[in-house]
Order: sequence, then C-alpha cells, then structure tokens
Amino acid sequence: MNLDGVFPPVATPFLSGAGPVDLDALRFNARRWMSTGLRGLVVLGSNGEAALLDEDEADAVIGAARECVPADRVLIAGTGRESTRATIAATRRAAALGADLALVRAPGFFKNAMTGEVLRRHFTAVADASPIPILLYNFAAVFGVNLPTETVAQLAAHSNIVGLKESGGDVAQVADQVSATPAGFQVVVGAAPALYASLCVGAAGGVVAVANAAPEACVRLHALARAGRHEEALALQRALTPLARAVTATYGVAGLKAAMAVAGYKGGVPRGPLQPAPPAAVEHLTKLVVALDSFLVERAVPRA
Amino acid sequence: MNLDGVFPPVATPFLSGAGPVDLDALRFNARRWMSTGLRGLVVLGSNGEAALLDEDEADAVIGAARECVPADRVLIAGTGRESTRATIAATRRAAALGADLALVRAPGFFKNAMTGEVLRRHFTAVADASPIPILLYNFAAVFGVNLPTETVAQLAAHSNIVGLKESGGDVAQVADQVSATPAGFQVVVGAAPALYASLCVGAAGGVVAVANAAPEACVRLHALARAGRHEEALALQRALTPLARAVTATYGVAGLKAAMAVAGYKGGVPRGPLQPAPPAAVEHLTKLVVALDSFLVERAVPRA
Amino acid sequence: MNLDGVFPPVATPFLSGAGPVDLDALRFNARRWMSTGLRGLVVLGSNGEAALLDEDEADAVIGAARECVPADRVLIAGTGRESTRATIAATRRAAALGADLALVRAPGFFKNAMTGEVLRRHFTAVADASPIPILLYNFAAVFGVNLPTETVAQLAAHSNIVGLKESGGDVAQVADQVSATPAGFQVVVGAAPALYASLCVGAAGGVVAVANAAPEACVRLHALARAGRHEEALALQRALTPLARAVTATYGVAGLKAAMAVAGYKGGVPRGPLQPAPPAAVEHLTKLVVALDSFLVERAVPRA
Amino acid sequence: MNLDGVFPPVATPFLSGAGPVDLDALRFNARRWMSTGLRGLVVLGSNGEAALLDEDEADAVIGAARECVPADRVLIAGTGRESTRATIAATRRAAALGADLALVRAPGFFKNAMTGEVLRRHFTAVADASPIPILLYNFAAVFGVNLPTETVAQLAAHSNIVGLKESGGDVAQVADQVSATPAGFQVVVGAAPALYASLCVGAAGGVVAVANAAPEACVRLHALARAGRHEEALALQRALTPLARAVTATYGVAGLKAAMAVAGYKGGVPRGPLQPAPPAAVEHLTKLVVALDSFLVERAVPRA
Repeated sequence: MNLDGVFPPVATPFLSGAGPVDLDALRFNARRWMSTGLRGLVVLGSNGEAALLDEDEADAVIGAARECVPADRVLIAGTGRESTRATIAATRRAAALGADLALVRAPGFFKNAMTGEVLRRHFTAVADASPIPILLYNFAAVFGVNLPTETVAQLAAHSNIVGLKESGGDVAQVADQVSATPAGFQVVVGAAPALYASLCVGAAGGVVAVANAAPEACVRLHALARAGRHEEALALQRALTPLARAVTATYGVAGLKAAMAVAGYKGGVPRGPLQPAPPAAVEHLTKLVVALDSFLVERAVPRA
Repeated sequence: MNLDGVFPPVATPFLSGAGPVDLDALRFNARRWMSTGLRGLVVLGSNGEAALLDEDEADAVIGAARECVPADRVLIAGTGRESTRATIAATRRAAALGADLALVRAPGFFKNAMTGEVLRRHFTAVADASPIPILLYNFAAVFGVNLPTETVAQLAAHSNIVGLKESGGDVAQVADQVSATPAGFQVVVGAAPALYASLCVGAAGGVVAVANAAPEACVRLHALARAGRHEEALALQRALTPLARAVTATYGVAGLKAAMAVAGYKGGVPRGPLQPAPPAAVEHLTKLVVALDSFLVERAVPRA
Repeated sequence: MNLDGVFPPVATPFLSGAGPVDLDALRFNARRWMSTGLRGLVVLGSNGEAALLDEDEADAVIGAARECVPADRVLIAGTGRESTRATIAATRRAAALGADLALVRAPGFFKNAMTGEVLRRHFTAVADASPIPILLYNFAAVFGVNLPTETVAQLAAHSNIVGLKESGGDVAQVADQVSATPAGFQVVVGAAPALYASLCVGAAGGVVAVANAAPEACVRLHALARAGRHEEALALQRALTPLARAVTATYGVAGLKAAMAVAGYKGGVPRGPLQPAPPAAVEHLTKLVVALDSFLVERAVPRA
Repeated sequence: MNLDGVFPPVATPFLSGAGPVDLDALRFNARRWMSTGLRGLVVLGSNGEAALLDEDEADAVIGAARECVPADRVLIAGTGRESTRATIAATRRAAALGADLALVRAPGFFKNAMTGEVLRRHFTAVADASPIPILLYNFAAVFGVNLPTETVAQLAAHSNIVGLKESGGDVAQVADQVSATPAGFQVVVGAAPALYASLCVGAAGGVVAVANAAPEACVRLHALARAGRHEEALALQRALTPLARAVTATYGVAGLKAAMAVAGYKGGVPRGPLQPAPPAAVEHLTKLVVALDSFLVERAVPRA
C-alpha cells in the first residue's frame, strides 16, 4: 500500500445546499483527477463534508469513487465515527464497497476522556476488526484531540495499521512521527503549505485540499522534492501556498468548491449550515488559481 | 412549555461497552426519576452519549422515555446534527415519537465557518421545519462554537424557539442571555456548580448531569432559590458542588454512570471508546454521594 | 482588613501616550472617588496599566494615592512581578509608601512551569517577607495561569494572606474558592458582570473596572445585595452590565478611560502601544454612561 | 548584519534562586561558546529569564556578554518591554552597551488590543528611535499575540528592521514569512525541532535553546543544510530533536540549565519562582546529552 504521492481529500458535490449528493459530479471529477499523476483519492475526509453525510450517503460516495479509481491507484475512505462500534461498522462497509484503505480519525466529542491509552484501545479495536488496512488520522485543531506521538509509535506496530495522516501542519511533529515509527510506516501530511518541508523531513506524501483544484501543481511539487531538486520545489511551494491557504484557512470548504469550479471541476455548493462562497471570495480565488497556473506555464510544468 | 425546574440530561445505559442500548435500564431509571420532583427528562444530550448512538438507537431512546414521562412533565430530546438537513430529519422523527421539545445544539465541526449569521440561518431553518418547539443548546467548550448572545436575541423572536440551554457555566453570560431576551424566553443552565447563581440572575431552571444521581438535592436547591431562601440555597449548592464537579469535569460520563449506580440507578458502563470509571474513581464518587446524602438527611430534605 | 465593598482598579492617567504619569489627574480622581461610598482604591492592577510602568513610576502612583485615601478606607497596591525576588522588593516598597494591602498576581511568563506547588512557594515566600497583608490575584485569561482552588485553600492558612481577587468571572469558581477557604478569607470578584451573582455565592466585594467611571452604581449594587433586596440588585446588575462589558471586553483600557472622561473623571489616553479609543467607541460609551445614569435617576439612587 | 548561522539564546546564570546574576559564569560560558562555530549570542531572550531581571541586571548582562563576543560575531540583546516608551529606553541602553542588534518581542499583556496595526506602530516607533538595527520577535505561545505575516511584510520595508525571530515552530508560517519579505530580510527560527525544515524553506538561521548545551551539533546541522547534504542534515536533526524538546517543552529553563551543566557549561539554577530540575529530569537529560554526543562521535563531527 504505497502512499508515496499526492491525494486530494475529495470534496463531495451536492445538488443544492439542502439537497442530495451529486454522484455524477463526483464521478466526473474523479475521472479527471485520475487523468493526472495523483496517487489516488481520499473520500469522506474533513473537506469531504463527511460530518454532514448520512450513513447511506457515505456508502454511495465510496461506491461511486471506486468505479473511477483504477486498481493501480489507491482509494482511501474516511470511516471514523465517535464510537468504536460505529467506526468498525463503517470500516467493514467501506471494505465491502471496495476501499483499499480506511482513514480513521481520532474521536473528539469527549475530548477530556481521550487519553493516549483510550485512543490506543480505540484504534487497536478498529484495526483488529477491519478487513482492510488502517490509516490513522490526526487533526487536533478540528477534532479537539491530539494523538500523542508515543501512541502513534505503539500503533505502528499493529500489522493492519500502515500509516498516519497528520493534518496539523506542524513539520516538527511530522518529523517526530517519522522518527518514532518504523521505515515502512507512512506519514502523509494534510496541510499543503507544509508539503515541501514535510517531504524534507521524511513524509511519504500529501493529502492536501488544494489538490482538488490544482492536482498538477501538487504532483509536480512532490516529484521535484523526490528528485532532490530543492530550489525548484521550494519555488513551487511558494507559488502554491497562497491558493492552498485560501481554500482552507481563509474560505473553508465553500472556497475549495469555488476554486474547483474555476479550475474546471464540478465543485458546487457546500451543504447547510455551510454557505456558498460570496462573490468577493470567488473573485479572489479566481485570481489565485490563475496566478498559480501562470507560474506552472512559465516553468513548463505539463498539465493534465 | 414551562421549564421552571430541574431536568437530568439522561445517561444512556448500554448492555456493554461494545453492546446495544439497554432500554429496560433506561425505563427503570426514568420511572424512578419521575417519582421525584424533577420537571421532566432530557434524552440524547451530551451526557447521554448521543454522539455515540446510531440514528435508530436514538429513536428508540426517545420512544422508551416517552413511555415513562407523564403528560404533565416535559420530555426533551436532543436532535442536533452537524447538517441542517439531518437536524431537521431528526427533529421531525423526535416529534413523531412524542418528544415535547427538541434540544438543538450548535453544529461545531466546521468551527471557523460558524458565524452568528450562519448559526442564525441554521436554527431558523430547523425551527421553521419543526412540528415541536425548539430549545437552543450552547456549550462552547464541547461543541467548539459559542452562540453569540446577539444571535440568541434574534432567534428568541422566532415563535417556535422557546428557550436556551447554556452549559458553559459562565453566570455572567447567563445573565446577559436573560437580559437580552423577552420575559417568556427561558434560559436553563447546564452546569450544576452554577445552578444557584444562575437562578439568582434569572435562569428558569437547570439541566444538570448530577440530577441523574441526586435528583432530590437539585430539586430542593431549585425550590429554595424560588422561595427566596438564599442562605439555605447557597448551603445546599456548596454541598452539591463537589459531586457535581466529579461527575462531569473530573470523571466524565463514566463517573456519572458510577455515581448513578451508587445512588441505586442503573448506570452501567459508557460505550467505547469511553472506558468505565476505575475503582479509585468509584470509591471517591461513593464518598461524595454519601456526603451529599448526609447533608440532606441533616437538613431533613424529603427523599423520593 | 475589611474588603466588604467595592473598589475601582484605578486607571493611571498619562500626560500623553508617550509621556509621564499625570499624578495630579490621579489625585483629582482619587479625591472624587473618596467622596462616594467606595471601600477604597486598588492602584497598579491590570487596568492600571501597571505592566507599562517603570518601577519609580509605580512607586509614585502609590504615594499619590495614599495622600488621598483616608485611614478608614483601604489602599491596595499591585506589587506582583514575574520573579519572587522583584515581587518581594516591590511589596516592601509599597508598604513603606503606605499601602494597606498588597495585591500579588500569579506570575505567568513561564506558564508551563507554574504548577500549584510552584505558585504556593512563590506566594508563601512573598507573604513571609511582606510587612503588610497579601491579597492573591488570579486572572487566568490575562496572566496565562490559573491558580488552582486547592492552592488557594493552602495559602488561606497563611496568617499574612487575607484574601483573593478572582477576575475570571466564573461564578462557580468563586463559589468554590469561598467554600474551600475559612470564613475570614475574603474573595473579591474582579468582573463587574458577575458582581451580583458573586455576592450571592459569598464574595466579600468587587474590584471592578467600571467603578472607575460609575462608582455609585457599583456601590448601590453591593448595598442592595447585602440588604437581601435581590430583585432590585438584579435589575441594577442588568443596567450596569452593558457599560461594564464595554469598558473591558469590548474597548479595553482605552474605553475605560474614555468612559471616565464622560463621567467627569480625568481619564486621558492609555500609554503606547495602547491607542486611544476611536470616536465611534467614545460615542457608544457616552450612550452607555448616559443610559446607566438615567436608570439610577429613575430609581432615585443618590449620586455622590 | 549577517545572521546566517546559529545563536544560543543565552541562559542567565544566578548565584542562587533568590540571588544576583552570576556574571562570571556568564563570561565563562560566553568565551566557550565563542570557541565554537556559533554565529554570535542572543542575551535577554525568553530562555534568558529576561522577564525575571531588573533593568540594571539586564544592562549588566549585555555589558558582560560584549566583553566576550568578538567584533566579527554578532551580539543580539532582547530589549522588548510592554510599553513602547520602555522598549525604546531599553534599546538605547543596549546600543550604548555595545549590542549589535536589538531583539524586540511583541508586547502581549494587553493581548486583545494588539491588532496588526497597533503592533506595526509599536515596532515602527522603536525602529525609528533605535541607534542599532531591530530584529522582530514573534512567539505567540509565550507572548499571547501572533504577529501577522502581513504586518511583518510591512515592517520589513523599514530600513532599521533587518529580520524576524520566529519561535513558534510552524514551518509553514516561516515559509510564508520568507516569501512575504524581500531577499535581504532574514528570518531566524527559534525552535530547534524545526531547524532543518526551516532552513529548507528559506530561514537564515536559528536561535535555539539547545545550542546553549550542544552548540556543535546545531552548527553542524546548519552547515549540512547549507551544503545541500540533506540526508545527513535530516539524520542529525533527528538525533538533536529529543534533547531539544527536553530542554524546552518538557523541562523548561531549569532543564536547559541542567543540560548545560552536563555539557560542561555553568548552568546553575533558575531564579524563583522557577525551581531547579528534579533529579529524575537531570538523569534523563544526561542520557540525552550523552546520546547526542555519541551520534556526533560516530559521524566524526569535530567538537570545539
């Protein structure tokens, strides 16, 4: 299960803010992404609005994605729930629907109870019960719980846990996670502004929101870093960061979907209570997409 | 819909940490609570481990509680979900199952997007669509979002929104919420250590975890405050606070369930990833329950 | 050392944002405050911009205040510094300059090292060395450290520590602090929106910023609560809260000084880097001062 | 003013926890550091316990350090205070005492008032008045205020502001700060676990606590990164990180001083309220120092 590359945490299209999932739009996007050098897709992550989906909708998203991801790429599905019981059930369903790997987030509703030991038991129970390998998922700012590096190191010994998605963007923590785990354990970073620096300190790859809208730039950055072309990689990282920040920190999921639309993907609107990006945001995002595109053209980066 | 009194946010019993909901235990507890002066029950709140329940389990809890709550008491059901769409669906189901009032929490997964205006739209859409009245639910430390008092004031004008459960324990904020809303809008406090002081500043009542294990003490405290017997109320508040802190801040849901067992209720264990209270915690909780009991006996507070 | 009453945490006037302390303005204000029912003055607190004063300026402020505070009122001086050594030195100087009581804040620069035990040692060393009694000062949001109630209880046994100023506004914590300490230990609250509720749960008095601009209202609120006139006290608390919030949470020290000017005190500007309140803030504050004044006139509260 | 290298933020030795500064010990350490490849010294930073020093003690530290730092190295002195006025005064004194550069931290006591614009005015006023160049200092976790990158970019245009010390350890923020400022503006990182990654994204150098105890390792890491020997640099970073975390995050200033003693420097004890490192911490730190040393010997890194 090689994660050495870039994955978009796939945005989920809806027919309207109060309406159902638009599976056709999802398939359209997935096929186009698969025409680039992306390593695979991650569905049902934070940016996929998984928290806003019913269980049957989540299952349908996995099924639709599977239709479009060929066997030599990797389909990862978010299956974390607040209870251990529901997480196991969702993971088993994802496996049955063809997911290659389950991305399991730390449960965070009962923050104060989530000690390292409690988290270790939770992930162990899920990994024991899962028919497919597990990718741990840490994102303290969103889930309210930070998975201790010591716990990651313990879990890395489980034969069914193959890696960690770290979305905090703290490169020193990524470096620690890489150092504390065996060589085969793969840490992927979930914050595009920290992508190049994370690859420097040993991350395997990236699951970065901006890859929904600008997959080529992300794939190129990964390739440059792997080739030891540090100057070019850093220049591309700098060109990528403004758009990366805009589609997450500044404008959130709504902004990510707007940027996708600018780039020719079917973004659509987020589900309520999330609101669509306002016109000024769309205008700003358009400029950022165009600026990154110009940078790529100048550097003659092949586009998909 | 008179909330002037005390409600327990009902703990949900399970047959085991990985097992199903124990509806018989729930009915046992509910009948016993209804033999005290409690104003009603709140099912599917934070302490009810609602975040760990499947949709069909949540529905079953409402149904079982309705069997035990007579028509002159109030059954409140938590129906908040992360999406507006799912919240509306859950609220309609709760109404069909006989809930008198829907407790709707602020969605918090996408914290940064939850402006006052976005929250206002969310709660308005839910209140518009709900067959039963709505009780807003604010608990910033747990949900990650603080419902601004200005937004509460706007929502108080909606004919289907009757009050607010404020669980932060900041009495000055409770006072603000009371001041900023019309006389008929009922603020209930969700933090037992702040119960007496909140009643002083105009709260209608309390939805307090410790009322699962010590309903008589809570009912008595409310009655003393209403009667203007401030010295006695304050003395009782002080006697209640150590147990109240232990069953929430110190030991969490596991501690609440252990204290219920000490007091003769069917507490059982929490659902995984939550773990049962360790022996030292149970010992400490036992002492606190006994100490409160002794205080009540000395003051000749009638027990149920 | 009776603290049963209200104290303003005295704002320090400056000749300009980059200029020296205006001791004449300080004396003018102090004399006028002493014509009201205030219990005394607190100089060199957080709102006194103590963090922006040199040591010799701090000493001069104590001296000037002492000239204006008669012997039957209480002059309290902030003497907390980051090091134990400097705190002891400042406390001794304050005693020599005539302060009745030293207000000693928890040191917070090295937050992570400030365990309960380290804080206990610090305050004990200061209390041992001080010629005058000590008032502990807890304000977690500003100092970055929360003095645990258990540590307060330990320190309350020291013969030279007479009380605690709690500025967090969490009334349940105030209630805990009162419960955990002997009857003679005086807890004063440092957040005006929580003044009435804190008095309900056993606080001795208040050190509240809004008393710089509206001392009569604060004194009246304290008197009503002490007389058991709860309805009137609560009504006055509600009338006071909007101005109280504006001069602290909303507009900060600059706003406090602007409100003082509206009320006829010599407020002036804060010291840089703090900037004066902008015109819109002054306009808003003027309306709030006038509104509170109208409330007091309607209720026939005597003005100084 | 070339900052391309490594600086220790010099720990200040004391004769005892309640006693005066030990200037002889400071000179001893300084001379030994100057025998290594360190680019210079930073005195009166956070780890220098500057917050615990009187003004005359701070001046004496600068004077003693100047005696030991030759003209071809750089002596940087922390001169930030809470008020603009006091910061200017301290900066002028530091210049008179021979400091080459003034490190000016963001004032944080009045956190809520510290907008980007207020900070811009503060730093501009200091830079205008200073006889020596200014190095901005951002450390949000300690000062309570985050200097916005946009404000850094504005300040970088000032002819007397030459760079920024960023101590948060967020490499993506470091990358942003480098990108947003002209080529001559030097960003130095203040978190050793992030040193290598920061150099990858364009930092000029590091001001890292662990360089007090292990200067050679830090100098070597910087040299390897500059030489494009990324594999070796990453390996050394991993070897360095455990000690680096221990002397800051885990054991604080007391731990840093204990590690210095293990490495043959005069560390001594911190000033009260800080307490000396307990025996178990000293034992752990000894192991970490020895482990790093062994790593360096194996790789044949020349020791000073």
